[in-house]
Amino acid sequence: MIDDDKPHEECGVFGAWNVTDAAAITALGLHALQHRGQEATGIVTHDGVRFHSHKGLGLVGDNYSDAKTMAGLPGTRAIGHNRYATTGETVLRNVQPLFAEFEFGGFAVGHNGNLTNAHTLRKALTRRGCLFQSTMDSEVFVHLIAISLYASVVDRLIDAIKQVIGAYSLVALTENQLIGVRDPLGVRPLILGRVHGADGNAGWILASETCALDIVGADFIRDVEPGEIVLIDDTGVRSIKPFAPQSPRFCVFEYIYFARPDSVMEGTSVYNARKLIGAQLAKEAPAEADVIVPVPDSGVPAAMGFAEASGIAFELGIIRNHYVGRTFIEPTDQIRHLGVRLKHSANRAILEGKRVVLVDDSIVRGTTSQKIVEMVRAAGAAEVHMRIAGPPTAYSCFYGIDTPERSKLLAARNSIEEMAKLIGVDSLAFISIDGLYRALGKPGRDPKKPAFCDACFTGDYPIALTDHIEPRDEQLTLLAELS
Amino acid sequence: MIDDDKPHEECGVFGAWNVTDAAAITALGLHALQHRGQEATGIVTHDGVRFHSHKGLGLVGDNYSDAKTMAGLPGTRAIGHNRYATTGETVLRNVQPLFAEFEFGGFAVGHNGNLTNAHTLRKALTRRGCLFQSTMDSEVFVHLIAISLYASVVDRLIDAIKQVIGAYSLVALTENQLIGVRDPLGVRPLILGRVHGADGNAGWILASETCALDIVGADFIRDVEPGEIVLIDDTGVRSIKPFAPQSPRFCVFEYIYFARPDSVMEGTSVYNARKLIGAQLAKEAPAEADVIVPVPDSGVPAAMGFAEASGIAFELGIIRNHYVGRTFIEPTDQIRHLGVRLKHSANRAILEGKRVVLVDDSIVRGTTSQKIVEMVRAAGAAEVHMRIAGPPTAYSCFYGIDTPERSKLLAARNSIEEMAKLIGVDSLAFISIDGLYRALGKPGRDPKKPAFCDACFTGDYPIALTDHIEPRDEQLTLLAELS
Amino acid sequence: MIDDDKPHEECGVFGAWNVTDAAAITALGLHALQHRGQEATGIVTHDGVRFHSHKGLGLVGDNYSDAKTMAGLPGTRAIGHNRYATTGETVLRNVQPLFAEFEFGGFAVGHNGNLTNAHTLRKALTRRGCLFQSTMDSEVFVHLIAISLYASVVDRLIDAIKQVIGAYSLVALTENQLIGVRDPLGVRPLILGRVHGADGNAGWILASETCALDIVGADFIRDVEPGEIVLIDDTGVRSIKPFAPQSPRFCVFEYIYFARPDSVMEGTSVYNARKLIGAQLAKEAPAEADVIVPVPDSGVPAAMGFAEASGIAFELGIIRNHYVGRTFIEPTDQIRHLGVRLKHSANRAILEGKRVVLVDDSIVRGTTSQKIVEMVRAAGAAEVHMRIAGPPTAYSCFYGIDTPERSKLLAARNSIEEMAKLIGVDSLAFISIDGLYRALGKPGRDPKKPAFCDACFTGDYPIALTDHIEPRDEQLTLLAELS
Amino acid sequence: MIDDDKPHEECGVFGAWNVTDAAAITALGLHALQHRGQEATGIVTHDGVRFHSHKGLGLVGDNYSDAKTMAGLPGTRAIGHNRYATTGETVLRNVQPLFAEFEFGGFAVGHNGNLTNAHTLRKALTRRGCLFQSTMDSEVFVHLIAISLYASVVDRLIDAIKQVIGAYSLVALTENQLIGVRDPLGVRPLILGRVHGADGNAGWILASETCALDIVGADFIRDVEPGEIVLIDDTGVRSIKPFAPQSPRFCVFEYIYFARPDSVMEGTSVYNARKLIGAQLAKEAPAEADVIVPVPDSGVPAAMGFAEASGIAFELGIIRNHYVGRTFIEPTDQIRHLGVRLKHSANRAILEGKRVVLVDDSIVRGTTSQKIVEMVRAAGAAEVHMRIAGPPTAYSCFYGIDTPERSKLLAARNSIEEMAKLIGVDSLAFISIDGLYRALGKPGRDPKKPAFCDACFTGDYPIALTDHIEPRDEQLTLLAELS
Repeated sequence: MIDDDKPHEECGVFGAWNVTDAAAITALGLHALQHRGQEATGIVTHDGVRFHSHKGLGLVGDNYSDAKTMAGLPGTRAIGHNRYATTGETVLRNVQPLFAEFEFGGFAVGHNGNLTNAHTLRKALTRRGCLFQSTMDSEVFVHLIAISLYASVVDRLIDAIKQVIGAYSLVALTENQLIGVRDPLGVRPLILGRVHGADGNAGWILASETCALDIVGADFIRDVEPGEIVLIDDTGVRSIKPFAPQSPRFCVFEYIYFARPDSVMEGTSVYNARKLIGAQLAKEAPAEADVIVPVPDSGVPAAMGFAEASGIAFELGIIRNHYVGRTFIEPTDQIRHLGVRLKHSANRAILEGKRVVLVDDSIVRGTTSQKIVEMVRAAGAAEVHMRIAGPPTAYSCFYGIDTPERSKLLAARNSIEEMAKLIGVDSLAFISIDGLYRALGKPGRDPKKPAFCDACFTGDYPIALTDHIEPRDEQLTLLAELS
Repeated sequence: MIDDDKPHEECGVFGAWNVTDAAAITALGLHALQHRGQEATGIVTHDGVRFHSHKGLGLVGDNYSDAKTMAGLPGTRAIGHNRYATTGETVLRNVQPLFAEFEFGGFAVGHNGNLTNAHTLRKALTRRGCLFQSTMDSEVFVHLIAISLYASVVDRLIDAIKQVIGAYSLVALTENQLIGVRDPLGVRPLILGRVHGADGNAGWILASETCALDIVGADFIRDVEPGEIVLIDDTGVRSIKPFAPQSPRFCVFEYIYFARPDSVMEGTSVYNARKLIGAQLAKEAPAEADVIVPVPDSGVPAAMGFAEASGIAFELGIIRNHYVGRTFIEPTDQIRHLGVRLKHSANRAILEGKRVVLVDDSIVRGTTSQKIVEMVRAAGAAEVHMRIAGPPTAYSCFYGIDTPERSKLLAARNSIEEMAKLIGVDSLAFISIDGLYRALGKPGRDPKKPAFCDACFTGDYPIALTDHIEPRDEQLTLLAELS
Repeated sequence: MIDDDKPHEECGVFGAWNVTDAAAITALGLHALQHRGQEATGIVTHDGVRFHSHKGLGLVGDNYSDAKTMAGLPGTRAIGHNRYATTGETVLRNVQPLFAEFEFGGFAVGHNGNLTNAHTLRKALTRRGCLFQSTMDSEVFVHLIAISLYASVVDRLIDAIKQVIGAYSLVALTENQLIGVRDPLGVRPLILGRVHGADGNAGWILASETCALDIVGADFIRDVEPGEIVLIDDTGVRSIKPFAPQSPRFCVFEYIYFARPDSVMEGTSVYNARKLIGAQLAKEAPAEADVIVPVPDSGVPAAMGFAEASGIAFELGIIRNHYVGRTFIEPTDQIRHLGVRLKHSANRAILEGKRVVLVDDSIVRGTTSQKIVEMVRAAGAAEVHMRIAGPPTAYSCFYGIDTPERSKLLAARNSIEEMAKLIGVDSLAFISIDGLYRALGKPGRDPKKPAFCDACFTGDYPIALTDHIEPRDEQLTLLAELS
Repeated sequence: MIDDDKPHEECGVFGAWNVTDAAAITALGLHALQHRGQEATGIVTHDGVRFHSHKGLGLVGDNYSDAKTMAGLPGTRAIGHNRYATTGETVLRNVQPLFAEFEFGGFAVGHNGNLTNAHTLRKALTRRGCLFQSTMDSEVFVHLIAISLYASVVDRLIDAIKQVIGAYSLVALTENQLIGVRDPLGVRPLILGRVHGADGNAGWILASETCALDIVGADFIRDVEPGEIVLIDDTGVRSIKPFAPQSPRFCVFEYIYFARPDSVMEGTSVYNARKLIGAQLAKEAPAEADVIVPVPDSGVPAAMGFAEASGIAFELGIIRNHYVGRTFIEPTDQIRHLGVRLKHSANRAILEGKRVVLVDDSIVRGTTSQKIVEMVRAAGAAEVHMRIAGPPTAYSCFYGIDTPERSKLLAARNSIEEMAKLIGVDSLAFISIDGLYRALGKPGRDPKKPAFCDACFTGDYPIALTDHIEPRDEQLTLLAELS
């Protein structure tokens, strides 16, 4: 009944160095990044002598409201993590940041992304006698660092990231530095900011998006570059680039759906990008209609751009209920019969007798779209046309986004005409891949050197899918799990 | 830090008769009415033999997701209640519906509104030996019914409501009927609907708003009339009007802020009403500006109406974070210094260098407005003008809305110029009371017979404020409280 | 599997006046009275201005260990209550002390015992318009006081207790006095003590047993007399005797099983009484045996008396596991097959090859006895003889002890020979009723004027069983219940 | 206020092979072993295909009462563990059994005892890149097995135990066998039993004490021998003895205090042993007195033996309150002034005017003894003599018993006369070390080859104390901790 038919970002990260109340500032940053992961959250701080940690299920606001929790996280250095996870069972041992005590001291790490050779590495490490505690890719980093034969943490970290393949943005905290790492193609975002505290101290911030700087009044400095390691300590920021330069491939879906509209990514306002995509979509796929209605909330800016470009009235024909939690009553026959929808409701006064253009950002399985169209028709719409602010999602993501397997993707199995029929619309159109690139200020997609990772639309995977196998049914090493 | 500077509706009610899975249907209706009360919720059902009850703190979705809870609420008859309450302490014993066993059988009741002679009646009833369990006005009804000398439940109910003064919409459930009552002036809303179940049964629904009909696929039949009692049983709906007819005074603030935009109240779409108010406001108080920016979410339709009427671009210059819960970390000096705002963030790409018109629905204490203006200026706005889609809120409500005492209302103590200065805007304007009435389709406000209750704007209180005294520091009768 | 085949005391009460940290002292007193009720506990204090309350399920130690809870119970005056209750469902609203605000001020009351006309009174009070919140007899007192036409609290209390019939010991707290009441026959215990605080203040204590004085270092003053009301305030203790004097009938089962062995009741040490009963039993029903083995813990003193009188060795042949909580794993076929016993285990080294006399205090349903005998035989006992330190329990108690209905009492349906066979012993004997009286220092039982209430043995009920009807299936008034 | 001045056993273990409902049987066994650890408990089962686990804080009865928990532990093979732990903080990650997935499959292990070179091994393993999850010695076993170069689990296990030094009894579960291991000196107990299920299957049991066999109706087969590994699978029991034979040193304190009285250890009934120790003590240190009073519960059998041997009456002069939980109200000045004691109360009727011999099993810090003597005197005892059923505890244990550091042991710093004065008794005596050995059937203590480990009395530590250093302040590896 909770029509959650969207891809999901698999995490947001945040780090702070030389910031008074670092845990509180990190909690606020994680709050601004809540859309990148709502299932669990963790913070590790360092107070100059010891590490401190809190991890919990649920929202940021629920985890750090307790004065006792915050008092347990002293220090001016912290990293934090928000997690999206698919199943309740695994969530308990999969909350980040991870923390390990190496011979040379403690090391905490949080990770946004996915390794495509994690399984292969785990097998090798297990054979060597490493005991794994979680199913998280991030743990592979930790073991690789632990067994590295190099001396310094940084050399061990480089040793580790040279062995992994994948899309990842890391924040790490040692006893004397804050570290940020972005994968060689820069698929996942990571930015650097600077904050001036109440006490006059100037500190450093690492975060997944600029909206996490805004909430704590920090200034944006720059994006961490693809393949870059930034080392932050009291002497400032040092940059290391251990990889040969490659053409970057930032995730285009961050613009379409994942990122918050008030974030600026790689120099582009996400809100403006979505409006331009909507305008481009209106040009490519116009519709004769009375109202442009967004599927809230993510479809709103694209619908505004579409309305402006088409000259058709923009109206809130669908109202979103923001009180929907994770669970609700089990649907009975009665509830199914009545066509109950918890998240959205039709604004009948707007829809009745109208030719409606619904603007949404994506169609994954198509189940939500189908129900929304049904609801809009039940409210009296004369015609329903759907316009999608991204190309058809025909391929799964292996780089840190939770998408269904390919066989479940509507666009992987159906033509656009078939999709229109299944969803029940009078017409259906997607923006073209070239149109998308143009809306983002590129001349179109250069197939030889595409400016973005668009594998979910094109199947062109820029990072090797080494593991690409079914996960075996493994028992985890649970030395100390509490259930 | 959670800038919650809005008036609060004090409850939503729902009732179902002859509806399969009545508890589930009621839970869904309450979910649609969640905006009318988020602190506690309760459902009482009757299965033909016995009553069953669940009450709990928190959201509807959190209370009825458990299969065991729902299995404990059998029957085709139910009433439910959402509650807003000001303090945590009192909430435990103040969750509705109330249930009492009278000599003639059980009686459950839920209540939206406020009695203005509740305290006077409580004192008299206590003197008589009645033991009160809660601070809720609704309990006065229950005792009045219990001690009434009439024989039938309906006669006792009429006996009771003839003694109370106030604004109230009641739903009640006895062993053989569902009852709806609306106060003589019809200040608070109550509607009647009809639902056709999976099993072909046609049942009846009572609810505070039409959006609660939409979610369960029910049809709107009519508003319950001011002063009307509707008695619903298996023979149909019977209407009793125990009061002399009076000119109705529906709460105008329901249109401005409380009700959900997709509801239709007294024949008028709330969404359309808000857009028309925005358009009227643009006519009355235009501004030279580059962008019209709503204070989300409630200011959005008025801002759209303003933008359309003024021809200035509508932009989402403020983004609302929907993950804000009830608590968060305590603000430290650092957090205050950094100007942290949890609920809203500025969309810098839209605001920078622009002349901005902010459209909001009301100013209560002014604290939120001040912070939002500060945030918009910090994001680089060149000018900030504020337009409010209601007249100045200069009087407290005693009819079921939680407003601060008069001395805390910004408009009660300041001229508009002073308010503008305090809030920090370049200009500030409110819609006129006549303009408001006109936007709602009236010819203006007739001071002798106003079409609405507008006491919060005009101080013209249509119902006597009998108790209008400070509540004494009373200990409650807590025969069976569990803490 | 948890063989809980004993009668249960239905409550312990405690009161303190002019005692620093009254809530803490009351908590300690209730802890010493924990054996009189383990399911819920409550304390009400008065700090000179207001009443304060905490109630909770579970043990005393679990409810008052929290500094915050204790800080919420300020004052030098308090009453407290431990409750035994039969079902989880009702427990929530049945935790005492009750508190009510009357016209003349607050009134808290805790109650040990049972009213035999409670149901009759409830019906009359409900007809009058009183709304009941609980199934507790004690609530009848509260309503009777609330509606009394007398002016003072004491006159109202006398008015109330003149209307009730039953066995009861009450402690009550008003804004200016601590009150103790014992029923006219003195069936349930209540004692008065005096404590000298760290600050030199001398305060008063009321309690069910002397062990509650010992724990707080208080001195025993005297038993409250049957039918007496003691009124304690800063001027001292005043005594009122509103009933005509009657021959007292203290509950004889308090000596046999309920009371703690270190308590002194009506001048007699419980521990000594039990040893004397055991000695008398040995005289009346000797056995040729090798060892005397108590069924722990309650059978221990009687077994010691039996062993001394018989000259046979006393041995701990059965070990009790004190970690047994309220629940445990569901018994499966396997568990039943293995004859698992959670609470007791056989000390095989003592039992093997021996002729064993088991000494217990009572047989109710007989289920536990049967299993214990089976266990003792499985451990290799050559013969098993059972001796019971009370006469056969052939009648239910209606005076505050939870006993099964008569049809479930083994002794109500079987001869002693049949019982021996059912339980599986080689011989079975009970002390005679006259022997019991003699062990307690009486010349035997005078049937015209028995010194004790022994209704459970003799069926001679000294207080009228007015209600003696099946409870009707009633729905409770739940004005403010939170579930 | 909770006078917990006893040494504490640090764990009980249980294992089952080929037993229907293995988890339930294990839970029952752990319940019988509850006295060996009350802070946490865990069970790991294997269902033929996968491992399943539940771990939780608190008592066995509280952890396995939930049908859902038990349904999550399917299989006919299981191991379980009860844990005593000193601090709340560490308990979360220190609950056993540990589980690890090695290259060759899963491995679960539970451990009773202590390694004396654990810290040294941890440092070496961490240097090698092993990441530790807990502070438990047991984790050292797991890493040693993981990195062993041998092929089979058994060879790896032997490789591991050859590297560790300490006192330990292990139960382990692999995918195809149940393993029991006892350290070379057999300091900690481990026994083998056989159970015949409802289905006719004959299964195997491993347990710390025989009382865990009795509860599940299993037959005692034999003690696992010092230094023995028993391998149990469907073909039966195989024994391996990888160590050169040594003279065994079973922990003598198991007889004095730790073990349950109904257990039989190394062929001797614990209950009988305690009575014989009491009798020997009466011979060595008689007293002119009126009553022999045990300090309950552990002093009871010794007091019985003392009373029999001395001919003085045995009386329960101190009553123990079995409802004492882990916490209670904070002591205030008032509570301290009143001399409140939660766990024990004096039976005044027995003590008043009497010359009392108190019999206890040990004096550790002496704080409890002091308070008990004070209480006994306050109850009117004319003289108080104390007799202790063990020699003075003058040395800490490093073999799995939680004792205070040596400087906190009363007997380490004081002569017996000084101790008597500090405790406040008229006389004090301990059994001699030779008397203790004799009571246990030995000819006395042979200093060259003592029959028991008696290091806590003699300082003769039979196992090297390699680590014997202060633990450094280390941060734990918390890869996946949830707080």
